[in-house]
Amino acid sequence: MNSMVRGSEIGNLRRGILLLVATVAGSSSLFAQDIFESQGVRYQTEVVATGLQQPSAMVFLPDGRALLVERRSAKVDLLDVKSGAITALEGGFAPLTGKETGAPDATRQSVVTMEDAGVHDIALHPNYANNGWIYISYSLGEHERSTTAVDRCRLRGNRLVDRERIFTAQAYSEDRFHYGGRLTFVGEYLFVTVGDRHHQNRAQQFSNHAGKILRLYDDGRVPSDNPFFGRADTRPEIWSYGHRNPQGLMVHPQTGELWSHEHGPLGGDELNIIRRGANYGWPVISWGWEYSGGPIGMGITAHEGMEQPVWVWTPAIAPSGMFVYTGNAFPAWRGSMFIGSMAQHHLNRLVIQDGRVVVEERLMYGKVGRVRLVAQGPDGFIYIGNDDGQLLRLRPAN
Amino acid sequence: MNSMVRGSEIGNLRRGILLLVATVAGSSSLFAQDIFESQGVRYQTEVVATGLQQPSAMVFLPDGRALLVERRSAKVDLLDVKSGAITALEGGFAPLTGKETGAPDATRQSVVTMEDAGVHDIALHPNYANNGWIYISYSLGEHERSTTAVDRCRLRGNRLVDRERIFTAQAYSEDRFHYGGRLTFVGEYLFVTVGDRHHQNRAQQFSNHAGKILRLYDDGRVPSDNPFFGRADTRPEIWSYGHRNPQGLMVHPQTGELWSHEHGPLGGDELNIIRRGANYGWPVISWGWEYSGGPIGMGITAHEGMEQPVWVWTPAIAPSGMFVYTGNAFPAWRGSMFIGSMAQHHLNRLVIQDGRVVVEERLMYGKVGRVRLVAQGPDGFIYIGNDDGQLLRLRPAN
Repeated sequence: MNSMVRGSEIGNLRRGILLLVATVAGSSSLFAQDIFESQGVRYQTEVVATGLQQPSAMVFLPDGRALLVERRSAKVDLLDVKSGAITALEGGFAPLTGKETGAPDATRQSVVTMEDAGVHDIALHPNYANNGWIYISYSLGEHERSTTAVDRCRLRGNRLVDRERIFTAQAYSEDRFHYGGRLTFVGEYLFVTVGDRHHQNRAQQFSNHAGKILRLYDDGRVPSDNPFFGRADTRPEIWSYGHRNPQGLMVHPQTGELWSHEHGPLGGDELNIIRRGANYGWPVISWGWEYSGGPIGMGITAHEGMEQPVWVWTPAIAPSGMFVYTGNAFPAWRGSMFIGSMAQHHLNRLVIQDGRVVVEERLMYGKVGRVRLVAQGPDGFIYIGNDDGQLLRLRPAN
Repeated sequence: MNSMVRGSEIGNLRRGILLLVATVAGSSSLFAQDIFESQGVRYQTEVVATGLQQPSAMVFLPDGRALLVERRSAKVDLLDVKSGAITALEGGFAPLTGKETGAPDATRQSVVTMEDAGVHDIALHPNYANNGWIYISYSLGEHERSTTAVDRCRLRGNRLVDRERIFTAQAYSEDRFHYGGRLTFVGEYLFVTVGDRHHQNRAQQFSNHAGKILRLYDDGRVPSDNPFFGRADTRPEIWSYGHRNPQGLMVHPQTGELWSHEHGPLGGDELNIIRRGANYGWPVISWGWEYSGGPIGMGITAHEGMEQPVWVWTPAIAPSGMFVYTGNAFPAWRGSMFIGSMAQHHLNRLVIQDGRVVVEERLMYGKVGRVRLVAQGPDGFIYIGNDDGQLLRLRPAN
């Protein structure tokens, strides 16, 4: 197929390839110093680290170092983003695989790391500077079953200490799919996503945590002003329901709104603004299909009392991670939402006005692997991690 | 809901509103001098004409004047784009409505203009400068039935003359939906889209023209190198099939490829590269749903031997018209594809690289009505027509 890039973009692509050829000898990766240009923004990718096992989330500490979690290895790493030096922390999560998932004592360290299971997210307490709490979500194995859980701990030297479980989702299943597991703080409240665990109907049932977004205090206690608190046969942690597998969650820095995205089945990935007590419709309504063909449920896309998404990705992009850019390195991107795409191998950029998406851009489309981790650094650069084990940094190019 | 436009965009919006207030007294429209900014491009809209009845297509003559067709009134207009002066041409298409659609002699002037029916497109012969041929597609009424037809004619003064029918689609129906009707020349060949006429299965049948894109000579004769020429029980005009209702057709100015888009049912609008003899799948595969809920056919989205779209709009935007911008007025938009959105009230801009969409932008989203007509002027400005009867021009703003 003929290329339809504009002349200037072809030029930049050529320049990028030339730079690539010039630098590949000194690099372990194809991506070192690759240069891209789109919508008037020129940027280059740098390899910060390689050899990671599905890096899924990272946060920056006040001292500029970063903590990073690897989904598949269950490692928690301390990262010097300048040198790329990585230190795997002690006191982390010991992965169990295969038959070992039958953890006889259901200890706090029983992380499952097969299929969708693993370590999902890491977040700092909003008062981290004073209390040092670090929150980590993961797939917890108990005998043949597993669920989504959240621990908190502190960093001391190269060790995680003071570790305690603050939440265990009532979302057990013997298969290892759809854990959700994204975390974000809104003021003193910790929000946690839990996937439907591959049992669709649970997402509409109040008696479990599957297919829900939950609201907790920082120690796992349940706020009594949660929307369904005190209702019979209802998990009081529920904030919203009818979700399939949300792998992105954030507070919008300008509006304070809670945003999430979730994987549809075949097609129908959704971007949602998460409202108190709202029903996001899965599996009653969906813009997607069963993988085997055929409709989801009744094959309807809208229903009274169920929220419509802000944006739909069809075919699916498999979104992972999200943030709104607030840095200075890329002025043109300030206010844009960035989301990783695993299935469609790009960094997704959205411009949102009045609650609607007016621009969707696919950065480095097809050239960047399965993007699972996205983060903004204190340097204003954008960090992305992919399932090839790379942590890349985007910075402006001259 | 809180607005999430960036500060500079809010400023521009305010400025636009101020200008609007300043100019509304001298204008019949809200859109006069409204200023927008997106992705680094500042532009303003000017009202060229109002009072049109669903303007659906326009072409520019070598002398800078334009011909414009109004779907609902079936008028063909001569337009002075500088002054906005419009002259309805004589010898045009006399609309029939209601019971009058039973045209007893099936004359060439029997245009139907209800529901989806009307005048659809206008195109100039590639050798127009020498032969003066103008092509117009429309819904042709014959008794209680109607179909898609193409006439050609010449302009003499304020009159269309030498008019002759060059093609009548074997795509009759008693209802008045899904005519397609877009025209484009590729060298000496005229391509014509025909919708499925609201009878889905026809799109997979070779014995009729419904749900097809057709390839003709400029006088309606059939090229013998068409993909199905000579095949039994097959309309030899067929170039591609399995279309639902294509209301956009163009040749890409850089690649020479034929591109089209088509309306899905509920969701699943498609952008396609049209390949010789290819099957675009409707109604066997679709990324959309029945309006009543439930799947299309077997509810599958892919099948061997059927093409996948380049881009899918879900929920549907109802695309109409298309071109790739090649002008000088908007350097940042050069190479972008522009498409009108009727259902989602915006001008859709796509950036395509290596046959894939990397940017979708929704210009003037929610502020511009049902955009049915899109065209690039010889001045490099962009012309759009909406179902509020406005013809607007986009030009750079300071």
